[in-house]
Amino acid sequence: MATDTLSITLSALADPTRRAILARLAEGAATVKELAAPFAISGPAISKHLRVLERAGLISRGREAQRRPCRLEAAPLAEVAEWAEEFRRHWDASYDRLDEYLRHLQREERNDDDRT
Amino acid sequence: MATDTLSITLSALADPTRRAILARLAEGAATVKELAAPFAISGPAISKHLRVLERAGLISRGREAQRRPCRLEAAPLAEVAEWAEEFRRHWDASYDRLDEYLRHLQREERNDDDRT
Repeated sequence: MATDTLSITLSALADPTRRAILARLAEGAATVKELAAPFAISGPAISKHLRVLERAGLISRGREAQRRPCRLEAAPLAEVAEWAEEFRRHWDASYDRLDEYLRHLQREERNDDDRT
Repeated sequence: MATDTLSITLSALADPTRRAILARLAEGAATVKELAAPFAISGPAISKHLRVLERAGLISRGREAQRRPCRLEAAPLAEVAEWAEEFRRHWDASYDRLDEYLRHLQREERNDDDRT
């Protein structure tokens, strides 16, 4: 298991339930009970997901014994976006190639129309 | 193990060696031998990393039996960037709070200077 910050963040994000929890917390703090409600999984399973997110610094938890509301900590996501953005010219390039190909098809089609 | 595309991509990226391989391929196609050179790990270990990246659709491999050069396939990274960008206002907000705090400190400092 990699132990650098970015790997820990990416590994914590590699689960749809954990990403859904972060999306929910982006709308505001929530208790474990509130977070568990939309998912068809057990309380302990949610708690395990929250521990993974907390260890990755993606959420923080209040200290009030009863509620302990969870809050989004978005800073590690900036590092993820920054890392992925480095590759933008590469995915842009593939879109450009696709664009060029579609324009080529349209030209072919127009030429066919001209001939008819 | 989650099996949705984004989870598979994030899981493949959660390793510094695999991210370094993608950074190298961003500069151009390379053979397994060329990719292995900068790393102090065995050929089989590199091959295992390449299989993970290939399964995630992050690289493709040529079909020539001897060389089989690897190429970057950046499209899945667009999905990662797009997902993380959704949270930009949250990390911008934490930077804003830090900014405000630093300006507050500077004002305090100026006030102290005025009093001396």
